[in-house]
Amino acid sequence: MVAVTGPTQGSTQGSTQGPKQARSRVTRRHLLEAAVSCLAEHGWAGSTVSVVAERAGVSRGAAQHHFPTRESLFTAAVEYVAEERSTALRDLFHAGPAARPAVVEALVDLYTGALFRAALQLWVAASNEEQLRPQVTELEARVGRETHRIAVELLGADESVPGVRETVQGLLDMARGLGLANVLTDDTARRARVVAQWSRILDATLG
Amino acid sequence: MVAVTGPTQGSTQGSTQGPKQARSRVTRRHLLEAAVSCLAEHGWAGSTVSVVAERAGVSRGAAQHHFPTRESLFTAAVEYVAEERSTALRDLFHAGPAARPAVVEALVDLYTGALFRAALQLWVAASNEEQLRPQVTELEARVGRETHRIAVELLGADESVPGVRETVQGLLDMARGLGLANVLTDDTARRARVVAQWSRILDATLG
Repeated sequence: MVAVTGPTQGSTQGSTQGPKQARSRVTRRHLLEAAVSCLAEHGWAGSTVSVVAERAGVSRGAAQHHFPTRESLFTAAVEYVAEERSTALRDLFHAGPAARPAVVEALVDLYTGALFRAALQLWVAASNEEQLRPQVTELEARVGRETHRIAVELLGADESVPGVRETVQGLLDMARGLGLANVLTDDTARRARVVAQWSRILDATLG
Repeated sequence: MVAVTGPTQGSTQGSTQGPKQARSRVTRRHLLEAAVSCLAEHGWAGSTVSVVAERAGVSRGAAQHHFPTRESLFTAAVEYVAEERSTALRDLFHAGPAARPAVVEALVDLYTGALFRAALQLWVAASNEEQLRPQVTELEARVGRETHRIAVELLGADESVPGVRETVQGLLDMARGLGLANVLTDDTARRARVVAQWSRILDATLG
């Protein structure tokens, strides 16, 4: 079995392993992306290794080579979701300093796409599936801390001031709630009005 | 088939129908309560008419008499969840005027119990099950409007002032997000700090 854990491992095994590893990594990514899409659209109950393999255009054998069990596939997909979310958050930094309303909008946007839908499906499935629960709980705590850290930086919030930490936490809870409100219906118009108002409140609170 | 839709119908059919209807209503309520508990604990995939009947201590035949299909049982259970939530909200009125922090705490509490867990399971299932989606979408909109109306009253918010409507909406979105954060872990301590801080912010905003 070829373990593809990152670029470092590829380089230590020499250049002749490169193309095979690159193909393997592409296949793995296709499987993870398909797993996330599958979760977002069909939920945990409708997400099996076979369904994901077909969606990824990968043979069932190849899928099982990478992920021997359904659980290992979706645990890796949770990790993938988390990395995608972190990348999206880090991308906010690249544009340089931004006005708070834009930051709030970007933070809320993280909770309204396919990634949030997939994470929500896993979150809810983990509440009923003992096998999933520990990994998802640990991952959500990690992602939550990372999201909070980036939110504090982007908002220019000074957490040494009493209440500021809880202010930022509440904002992210609201973003999560807004994401939930967008699952069954397109909540875009209402959400824009709520975000505009709470950006003003946040600005007044953080100073 | 005996349709038990409310006390009015019972009285129009004469007093001899009373005891039988009363028993039927009790059975129906047991089934609905069992359906809600089942959903909260096992999710949509683990919730069947048989499982609910066994949990309610009702024969499968009796359960099917009340709810011929899995869908009709859980559609009714969604309705039941909504009524329970409305009752819990109305109960807040009975104690008379309350301080805003207590109101915010009570509103948030609505999203952290078994009723929210059951509603969340249905919400997520409805996003993947076309048969459930229309009923759950309609019901959530109705419950959302009712919750908003009661929140406005309890908070003493004047919606004729620009931004106040969105302020209350954002608070309820935050409450929903706090409920979601409580699904996998006991988030009580963190939630109390966030609620205390945002009660202060809300008080300053609403005046």
